[in-house]
Amino acid sequence: MIVILSPQASKSDIDEVTANLKERGYGVHVSQGVEKTIVGVIGAHDDEKLLVAEQLSSLAYVERVVPILKPFKVVSHEFHPDKTIVKVNGVDIGGQKVIVMAGPCSVESEEQTIEVARAVKAAGASILRGGAFKPSTSPYSFHGLGEDALKMLAAARELTGMPIITEVMDTRDVELVCKYADILQIGTRNMANYSLLTEVGNARKPVMLKRGMASTIEEWLQAAEYIANQGNYDIILCERGIRTFETYTRNTFDVSAIPTVLGLSHLPIIADPSHGTGRHALVPPVAKAAVAAGADGLMIEVHPQPEKALKDGAQSLTPNNFDQMMKDISAVARAVGRYI
Amino acid sequence: MIVILSPQASKSDIDEVTANLKERGYGVHVSQGVEKTIVGVIGAHDDEKLLVAEQLSSLAYVERVVPILKPFKVVSHEFHPDKTIVKVNGVDIGGQKVIVMAGPCSVESEEQTIEVARAVKAAGASILRGGAFKPSTSPYSFHGLGEDALKMLAAARELTGMPIITEVMDTRDVELVCKYADILQIGTRNMANYSLLTEVGNARKPVMLKRGMASTIEEWLQAAEYIANQGNYDIILCERGIRTFETYTRNTFDVSAIPTVLGLSHLPIIADPSHGTGRHALVPPVAKAAVAAGADGLMIEVHPQPEKALKDGAQSLTPNNFDQMMKDISAVARAVGRYI
Amino acid sequence: MIVILSPQASKSDIDEVTANLKERGYGVHVSQGVEKTIVGVIGAHDDEKLLVAEQLSSLAYVERVVPILKPFKVVSHEFHPDKTIVKVNGVDIGGQKVIVMAGPCSVESEEQTIEVARAVKAAGASILRGGAFKPSTSPYSFHGLGEDALKMLAAARELTGMPIITEVMDTRDVELVCKYADILQIGTRNMANYSLLTEVGNARKPVMLKRGMASTIEEWLQAAEYIANQGNYDIILCERGIRTFETYTRNTFDVSAIPTVLGLSHLPIIADPSHGTGRHALVPPVAKAAVAAGADGLMIEVHPQPEKALKDGAQSLTPNNFDQMMKDISAVARAVGRYI
Amino acid sequence: MIVILSPQASKSDIDEVTANLKERGYGVHVSQGVEKTIVGVIGAHDDEKLLVAEQLSSLAYVERVVPILKPFKVVSHEFHPDKTIVKVNGVDIGGQKVIVMAGPCSVESEEQTIEVARAVKAAGASILRGGAFKPSTSPYSFHGLGEDALKMLAAARELTGMPIITEVMDTRDVELVCKYADILQIGTRNMANYSLLTEVGNARKPVMLKRGMASTIEEWLQAAEYIANQGNYDIILCERGIRTFETYTRNTFDVSAIPTVLGLSHLPIIADPSHGTGRHALVPPVAKAAVAAGADGLMIEVHPQPEKALKDGAQSLTPNNFDQMMKDISAVARAVGRYI
Repeated sequence: MIVILSPQASKSDIDEVTANLKERGYGVHVSQGVEKTIVGVIGAHDDEKLLVAEQLSSLAYVERVVPILKPFKVVSHEFHPDKTIVKVNGVDIGGQKVIVMAGPCSVESEEQTIEVARAVKAAGASILRGGAFKPSTSPYSFHGLGEDALKMLAAARELTGMPIITEVMDTRDVELVCKYADILQIGTRNMANYSLLTEVGNARKPVMLKRGMASTIEEWLQAAEYIANQGNYDIILCERGIRTFETYTRNTFDVSAIPTVLGLSHLPIIADPSHGTGRHALVPPVAKAAVAAGADGLMIEVHPQPEKALKDGAQSLTPNNFDQMMKDISAVARAVGRYI
Repeated sequence: MIVILSPQASKSDIDEVTANLKERGYGVHVSQGVEKTIVGVIGAHDDEKLLVAEQLSSLAYVERVVPILKPFKVVSHEFHPDKTIVKVNGVDIGGQKVIVMAGPCSVESEEQTIEVARAVKAAGASILRGGAFKPSTSPYSFHGLGEDALKMLAAARELTGMPIITEVMDTRDVELVCKYADILQIGTRNMANYSLLTEVGNARKPVMLKRGMASTIEEWLQAAEYIANQGNYDIILCERGIRTFETYTRNTFDVSAIPTVLGLSHLPIIADPSHGTGRHALVPPVAKAAVAAGADGLMIEVHPQPEKALKDGAQSLTPNNFDQMMKDISAVARAVGRYI
Repeated sequence: MIVILSPQASKSDIDEVTANLKERGYGVHVSQGVEKTIVGVIGAHDDEKLLVAEQLSSLAYVERVVPILKPFKVVSHEFHPDKTIVKVNGVDIGGQKVIVMAGPCSVESEEQTIEVARAVKAAGASILRGGAFKPSTSPYSFHGLGEDALKMLAAARELTGMPIITEVMDTRDVELVCKYADILQIGTRNMANYSLLTEVGNARKPVMLKRGMASTIEEWLQAAEYIANQGNYDIILCERGIRTFETYTRNTFDVSAIPTVLGLSHLPIIADPSHGTGRHALVPPVAKAAVAAGADGLMIEVHPQPEKALKDGAQSLTPNNFDQMMKDISAVARAVGRYI
Repeated sequence: MIVILSPQASKSDIDEVTANLKERGYGVHVSQGVEKTIVGVIGAHDDEKLLVAEQLSSLAYVERVVPILKPFKVVSHEFHPDKTIVKVNGVDIGGQKVIVMAGPCSVESEEQTIEVARAVKAAGASILRGGAFKPSTSPYSFHGLGEDALKMLAAARELTGMPIITEVMDTRDVELVCKYADILQIGTRNMANYSLLTEVGNARKPVMLKRGMASTIEEWLQAAEYIANQGNYDIILCERGIRTFETYTRNTFDVSAIPTVLGLSHLPIIADPSHGTGRHALVPPVAKAAVAAGADGLMIEVHPQPEKALKDGAQSLTPNNFDQMMKDISAVARAVGRYI
């Protein structure tokens, strides 16, 4: 940690801040430049440093505090140099194979769920997605069928053999969702719901953590650290677009987040071009881009009749379109040394 | 709702979409322009319309669906023309008096809490704020003292007579926090935690709802609608800055959100310049700006020794600075026909 | 154009607005819904409509004006269904071949320029890039060698046969730059410099128009319309990242802009992952993503010794890294039916 | 400047970077922490440091380079502690009086200009604004009357005695605009048009520099530095809103930029709530907020018939509304120790 003092800092200000730091057990190194004085702070734990940084910033003669260490540890490459492979009922996420999770945004009925499950499996998907508890901006929208939907997903798993992933939104539902799901999904609106992160960190199920729509990559990795910090290392990250001024797309899909995360962390990362773009016509090209950039997998919304979907119809592919997209992506995956 | 068809839409496409809409009971009006065909959709409930908009967007020949009605109702001015005044133990929020809520970011000890409570009351604050459950980006930071902190706040209320406001982050804690707090605070990270909104909507306590750091004003009012929809109309909105590309301030305080909300909704709105700027030197000028723009109140972080605060030291005022700021704000409040 | 009136609009307000519109020669259609009145406006030119929209918005009883037509014409797919191929000295931009433009950010010397030109040509680049006039955030940074640099680029073209592209920043320099360059580049900071757009619209050279770092796709296409409106249709668009809250990358590369532009316009679009990410390690994966998403070309910064570059060293590839990247991209291009 | 090396940096990497820096004449201080090595770089000019920072960032073993000094000098408080007062024909901008610049967005006719000039002067405005050269997103919109408009503004000055401010967009027009205008305005789209900044830096007229809609405060002050670097110190800054995800307002007015700029720089700063909000109903409350936050002035669009304005009707006040706003602002100005 480096403390940059303002040009107005007096000798006694410098003495005060160094005494304050030494008192707390830090090593201190003062460097007086032509215009500014800089105080290097050595030793102590990262978490304490964050606190000290905040506190020092409150002093009138401190201009800025610059942290040196990254704010996440367990999920960093430095902590664990080998890529993590999350294993889910025989499906490896983070290996050579690009894993595709597909299914309807919301589970609407057992027939619909099974129909889509069979279609996406035939096209090459490995995992079935489907919403039982659905976050909605409006209180008057559809919120999902709850446990009934979980049972329908389980029925589809029974018939197709595909593991299932579904979102959990409430700390009180974690136990229930764990009874049915193979992967717990944390949605974008709950990326900074620390109670929920702690709860799924205690669950014995893999967790897929979507990026918060206004979260930096560092904050996202810190959210993953919450889960890991409880002892659950089976974490998959999912880039799903961030909020920007552009209004043509629902979100701006941040493709560079994929190689960035792969460089900073050992966790696998997948891409959700359905939410990332919000427009079905953009899903296939952005899916190809994500695989070319190194994504370990994709999450795609598929609905037999998007024009009758109870949620997110605008961004859902039909089974036919999905099938075509899988063929195209297979070629891209091979071009970057992967397969689908 | 208006459906704009793409120039490629054929006669049979137009027939399909109008038949589809009529079948669902909507009135339909087709207007053929020189370049585009537009379909007006009349009748039916808003929530259904949102769903239909999504579904229609999935059709290849639909270019865009434009909603006409605002996506919130109960919290809108049209629904309830008179300004709502939230009454909390003799304090009226939304009336002529600008209400100031002040106190430490986190409750650290009973002494600290009482010391700050007495200081801010003497300076003119009406409500005591203090964090018992604290959201933190890092899992290694301080997370608050929990129920112990709630007891300390209650002790400070006992001594000073000031009502207390504190954040609740977990649906499982709502009952506990209700036992102590006079106002429940929903933080920026939980603005779209719909389970939590529903839960505090069922509580019989006023709720202060902070704007999500990446939420539009419309989404924020929809979040308030979640609470109101459960029957709890005692809602106070709080503008606390949004996330932008600017890095000098922690957030960008959106001052125009204040008159915007006052124009769209009957709910009172207060301002949090401490989080809005993240820098103590900017708190007083932005607080004055908020009051000049029409804010019904302020929420300010005050700490006796910001350089030793366990949280948010950089943006906390000392009791002395707070006292000075209150005098300055009093003049601004009078200039806009209010008092403090 | 559709005018949505506020619920407070009276009968006489409605009469006023319709009379006002009819007087200007528009067809008018009034639709009275349960809660709101909507006025459809038919006929008249788009440009007039924009003006009328602004004017109507100033009326107290008008809630919102919704434009129906896209705000660009000549560059739209509707105007010109076939893809535009920009031909530059035997290089076709917008065809099956993915065109790579590469070279140093700034031209520093004739030796450096020729060295890089030979290296990038050997690796498969088709066009040489190099800055003669350089925009810099700081007045104290390097601003380019001006006409001397243009001569060095011309010398490199002489030796390698590669056409050259270079930026023009000032209306007064357009004539000079046209004397040397094969393609005129408009940089991100000048995307909305309408005097400059008009000037290059009058030049008889192809123009590459970078997206403004805070411009929507619609605004970008309107900027292209400025150039086309002067009669210069040889326009290449270049996505180079937009400004967001994410600080890890210099910009957020908007990969979905590529298929979006290809859907809305007939103009070719290329990608600049060097500025899009600002970090050399992210350039190859994002370049692959852009090609997978359908980009017609790439613009890449290459410097023999990035640690001694006078500009943008952090994002420049060495010739060796560039050569490796070209091999990798070749495979991706083939996977999407293109070649390099 | 501080260079943070990655944990993988070897002894020879550290030697290389320090030798490289010493060779260029910098003082170097190496500090080996438990996890990372940090290299402090002392001496040399700021501009060179920016270059070195870029160059060092290209090295694989360099994780990050942290600048210590602010990237602007002449416009900083450290360089010139006293507040700058820009004097324009007897009007002092930056003193106790809050200066109001008002007038139509575009000059449309001599009658309109004189009518508005008289009305705003009667209401208390000090400077007349009016556009002669107008930037427009669409090539088909109104672009201003050019020199004719400048003559109309001069005629209004003759009659009212008010100095005039108008925008210049093209380096070739600076001389012409200087013949008529008392203050040259640089618009938001040209804040980073460095050729234009240099040109007005050479003019002997005060310059008002609007913030780029996607520019950080630091970049804005660097743009001012461009002007000052040519010897023109009569610079007024103007906050006019930044681009964010919020769509209700045209821009997000960044009120905290006002005290931030006043803290970092000696230059006066004014506020433009017309463009900052884009909605006439929000102009008065945001204007009051700006004055309460310390703005040295306001720029307001006034049009006798906004519903017939050739530009920006939606955000223009009528003379009556302007008159009322001036009365309200006068009270706020007095509350913060200023007058109007």
